[in-house]
Amino acid sequence: MEDKAKEKDKGITARKAEDFSEWYPQVLTRSGFIDYGEVSGTIVLRPSSYFAWQEIKKAVDAKFKKDGIEDAYFPLFIPDRLLMKEKEHMEGFNPEVAWVTEAGGAKFPERLAVRPTSETIMYVSFAKWIRSWRDLPLRYNQWNNVVRWEFKHPTPFIRTREFLWNEGHSVFATKEEAEKERDVILGIYERLLKDYLALPGIIGMKSDNEKFAGALSSFSIEHVMPDGFALQGPDFHLDGQNFAKAFDIKFLNKDGATEYAWQNTFAITTRELGVMVAMHGDDKGLVLPPRVAYVQIVIVPILKTDASAAVIEFAGKVEQRLSDKYRVRLDSREEYTPGFKFNEWEMKGVPLRIEVGPRDMAKGVVVCARRDTGAKEEVKLEDLETAVARLLDEVHESLYSKAKKFLDDSVHAVRDYPEFKKTLDEKKGIMHAPWCGDTKCELDIKAETGAKITNIPFDQGRLEGNCVRCGKQAKYMANFARSY
Amino acid sequence: MEDKAKEKDKGITARKAEDFSEWYPQVLTRSGFIDYGEVSGTIVLRPSSYFAWQEIKKAVDAKFKKDGIEDAYFPLFIPDRLLMKEKEHMEGFNPEVAWVTEAGGAKFPERLAVRPTSETIMYVSFAKWIRSWRDLPLRYNQWNNVVRWEFKHPTPFIRTREFLWNEGHSVFATKEEAEKERDVILGIYERLLKDYLALPGIIGMKSDNEKFAGALSSFSIEHVMPDGFALQGPDFHLDGQNFAKAFDIKFLNKDGATEYAWQNTFAITTRELGVMVAMHGDDKGLVLPPRVAYVQIVIVPILKTDASAAVIEFAGKVEQRLSDKYRVRLDSREEYTPGFKFNEWEMKGVPLRIEVGPRDMAKGVVVCARRDTGAKEEVKLEDLETAVARLLDEVHESLYSKAKKFLDDSVHAVRDYPEFKKTLDEKKGIMHAPWCGDTKCELDIKAETGAKITNIPFDQGRLEGNCVRCGKQAKYMANFARSY
Repeated sequence: MEDKAKEKDKGITARKAEDFSEWYPQVLTRSGFIDYGEVSGTIVLRPSSYFAWQEIKKAVDAKFKKDGIEDAYFPLFIPDRLLMKEKEHMEGFNPEVAWVTEAGGAKFPERLAVRPTSETIMYVSFAKWIRSWRDLPLRYNQWNNVVRWEFKHPTPFIRTREFLWNEGHSVFATKEEAEKERDVILGIYERLLKDYLALPGIIGMKSDNEKFAGALSSFSIEHVMPDGFALQGPDFHLDGQNFAKAFDIKFLNKDGATEYAWQNTFAITTRELGVMVAMHGDDKGLVLPPRVAYVQIVIVPILKTDASAAVIEFAGKVEQRLSDKYRVRLDSREEYTPGFKFNEWEMKGVPLRIEVGPRDMAKGVVVCARRDTGAKEEVKLEDLETAVARLLDEVHESLYSKAKKFLDDSVHAVRDYPEFKKTLDEKKGIMHAPWCGDTKCELDIKAETGAKITNIPFDQGRLEGNCVRCGKQAKYMANFARSY
Repeated sequence: MEDKAKEKDKGITARKAEDFSEWYPQVLTRSGFIDYGEVSGTIVLRPSSYFAWQEIKKAVDAKFKKDGIEDAYFPLFIPDRLLMKEKEHMEGFNPEVAWVTEAGGAKFPERLAVRPTSETIMYVSFAKWIRSWRDLPLRYNQWNNVVRWEFKHPTPFIRTREFLWNEGHSVFATKEEAEKERDVILGIYERLLKDYLALPGIIGMKSDNEKFAGALSSFSIEHVMPDGFALQGPDFHLDGQNFAKAFDIKFLNKDGATEYAWQNTFAITTRELGVMVAMHGDDKGLVLPPRVAYVQIVIVPILKTDASAAVIEFAGKVEQRLSDKYRVRLDSREEYTPGFKFNEWEMKGVPLRIEVGPRDMAKGVVVCARRDTGAKEEVKLEDLETAVARLLDEVHESLYSKAKKFLDDSVHAVRDYPEFKKTLDEKKGIMHAPWCGDTKCELDIKAETGAKITNIPFDQGRLEGNCVRCGKQAKYMANFARSY
C-alpha cells in the first residue's frame, strides 16, 4: 500500500520543454487521465479521457447524421481469405494484424483477423445489399475498437495496439458524388478539432507513397507535436473502384447497365486525445479544453476560519447556480488544504477554478482562476453566470490561438536542399518545400533526412522554385517532416 | 444480380405461430434489421437495429450517470495468466474464450483472451487505484463488444459469438452499500425494458447452480419467448469479496485498518433486441416499439390521379410538421404502388403509417394506420400532432400489454412432479413450483425434464407445498423452464 500511495501522489516531475517524451506519459497517467493496460501497447481510458472521447463522438456523429450518414455495427473478426481479397490493402495491413486461431481448446480451420479496419468485412455485405442506383448512396459509419499490432515503441493514444475510432464507408453511383464527400467530411473533422479540442491542423493530400493501402488518393489533417515531430490526424480516402472490383460491388444504373460503385473511407481516432494533451498541457499537468473537460469548473472553499460551515454552504449555492449548465465539482474535503486541492485539480486539467473564502463571501464575490494562464479574476456574484461563460470561452480561444501560433511557427518555407536539412535539424517541424512529385525524390529525402511527406497542403500558397531534391520543375509545395 | 434481387424481395414466408425458429431469422434479415456476418455466429447490426441499441444505451446510460456511475474503457485483450486468477470465474468462461496467439507473423509468448467479460482486466487496475475509503465507491461502466465462442447452434442476438453490452463494475467499502446497488440497477433495467422495448420480465435470484462464475449470488430478469422457451435477460451479480481477494483490491478504512472491498457486476446486452423482435413481430414482419424505431412514422402519398404533385406537396407539409419531434420518412418514390410501400414499411416494423391521398387532402384529413393492430383512423389536420403522439403511445402500451399477458399466461403454478411434467410438455413456459433449495433436486429435474431454474422470483407469492422433486419442505417458489 505504501508504495502505491507514493507513486500515485507523485506530481509531474518532468519538464515539457526539456523532456517531452518523459513529460507526456507522466501527465497522462499521474493526472488519472489514463493508465497502462496489462498488454503492452494498450491503455485504459479512465472517466476523464473516455468522456472527452464521447464528446468528440457525439459532436462528429451529429454532423455525420445530419449529412445522411447512418450508424451500423459489423463483426470484430475477419476471415483470413477476406482480408486477402484486395491485394494492396492486404499488403498494407497484414504485418500488423492480430490473429485469433483457437477457442475453447479447438484450433480454427481458418484464422480470423481482429479488425485493423473493416473494409473487407463490410464490403462483402455491401455487395449483397447494393443492387440498383436506388440503393445508393449507401453511407455507413461505425464507432468501434480496432487492433493494429505495431511493433514500434508504443506511445499512449499516439501509437496504441488497440484504439477507438469512427470508420466511415460510403458507396456512390458516380465518381463526382464520391469526390464531393471529401470536403464535407474533412470540414467536419476540422471543425471538431477546432471547436472541441482547440487544435489546428494542416489539411492536404497524402503523397502516393504515403496514401492508404487500397485508396486512389488519401487526404489528412496533420499536426505538429510540441517536440517538433509531425503526427497524422483524421483522414479521408477516395477509394475509387478498387474495392468495388475486388468485392464485386455493382449496381444497375438508370439505363439498366451494370457499373462498379465508387467508395470512400474516413476516420478520426482516440489519437486526437493525445494531441490535445500534448499541445495544451504544461508542467503542472493536463490543461483540458472546456468543451471536452470531464470537470469544467471546480469550486474550492477556503476554510481558514470558524466560518467553515457558512463558506461551504455558500460554495454549495455557487455550485447549484452553475451545475445545470456546466460540469461542476465542489471539493469540500476537509482533510486537504486549498493548496493541495489547487494542485490536484490543476494536474487534472480542470479549466476553471472558483475560490470561495469568508472574505469573498462578505464582499459578495468569488475568485475565478483560469487553468491555462493562471490568471485570477474577482467576479461579482450577480455576474457569475456571464463571467463563467466568458472565461470558459476565453480559455478555449486562448488554447486554440496558442496552438495555432505554434503550428504556424512550425512550418518553414525552404527553397533548397541545404536550407531544408539545416532548418529541419535546427528548427524541426515542417519543411514546406517545392517537390517534383516523383516518389524517388520523396524516398531519397526520407532516407537522407528522416523526413517524409506529411501531406501536400490544400493551401499551396505560391509554387516557387524547383524540387528541393532533384532540381527539376516542382509540381507541388509539399510538407516534409520527421514524424511519429 | 437476378438471384440477389429475388432473395431480397422475398417477404416473410414462415408463420410465427407455426414455425417460430424459421420465422425469427426471416423477419430479422428480410426486414433489413440485421444480416449474417461472414464468421459463423456473428451478425451485422444494420442502421435500424443499431439505432435501437443506441437508444437503449442512451436511456440506460443517462440513469447510470445520474446514479453516479462513470464510463471508462479497458483493453479488449486479457493475458492468459490474468484470466486464470479467479478459479471459478476462469472455469466458467474458459471453454468459450477466443484466443489471439499471433500477430504480424510472430507467435506470442503468452496467448491473449479476447474479453468474454472484463472482470480480470479491470480488477488489476482497480487494485492499483484503490487505496483508501476515500477512493470508494468506485463505480465504472463500459459499453463495449465481447466475444464468447459458444459451440451451440447460434441464433441472432440470442446466442451470438460477439455481442454488445454494458458491463458495470462497482467497488464498495461495505457489503451493505454493495447490496443496496442491486435494486437500483435491476430497477433501471426493468424500466428500460418496459418503457423502451415494451417488454416485461420476471425479476429474481439465480440458483447457486446457475449463478455467474465467481459471484456470491446472481439476479436476473427472465423472459419467455413466443415458442415457450425461457431466455435470460439483464443480470446483476453480488461478487462479495471473491475478486477482491483474487486481485488484492484492498483499502484503508476510516480506522486505518486494511479491508478487502465488496464488488458487483451487471449487464444488459444486444440480446434484448432479439427478444423485442420475437415478442412483437408478426407474419408481416417486424413490429418496432415506437421509442426505439429507426423510422417512427412513414408517410405514403396515394398518387392515383393527376393531383400527384399537389399530394406530394401536401405530404411534404405533413412531414415537416412532424419531423422536429419524430423520425419521419416520406416515401414519395413514384415507381412503386402504395400497396408495395405499405408491405415494405410494415415488414420494416414502422409503428405508424400516414396515408395522404387527394380525397384526404380535399377533406383536410390524413389516415393513420397502426402497425401493431392494422387499425386505421381518420385524423383531422388540426389534430395531427396530438393524434400522432397518442397513437404512438397507444402502440407502445398495447405492445407491452400483449407481451405482459403472454408472460403472465406462460407462468404455470404447479404443485407436484406429474403436474410439472405434464404442464411443461403441454403448455411449455415457466413452471412455478415449490423447491427445497437443494442443487441435487434442481439437477435431477433438469436431467429428467430439460427444465432448469430460470430464477427464484422476488415475487414469491405464497410458498405452498413441498419440493416438487423430493417432497421435502420447500424453501422457495422457483421458476423452472426449458431455456435457450
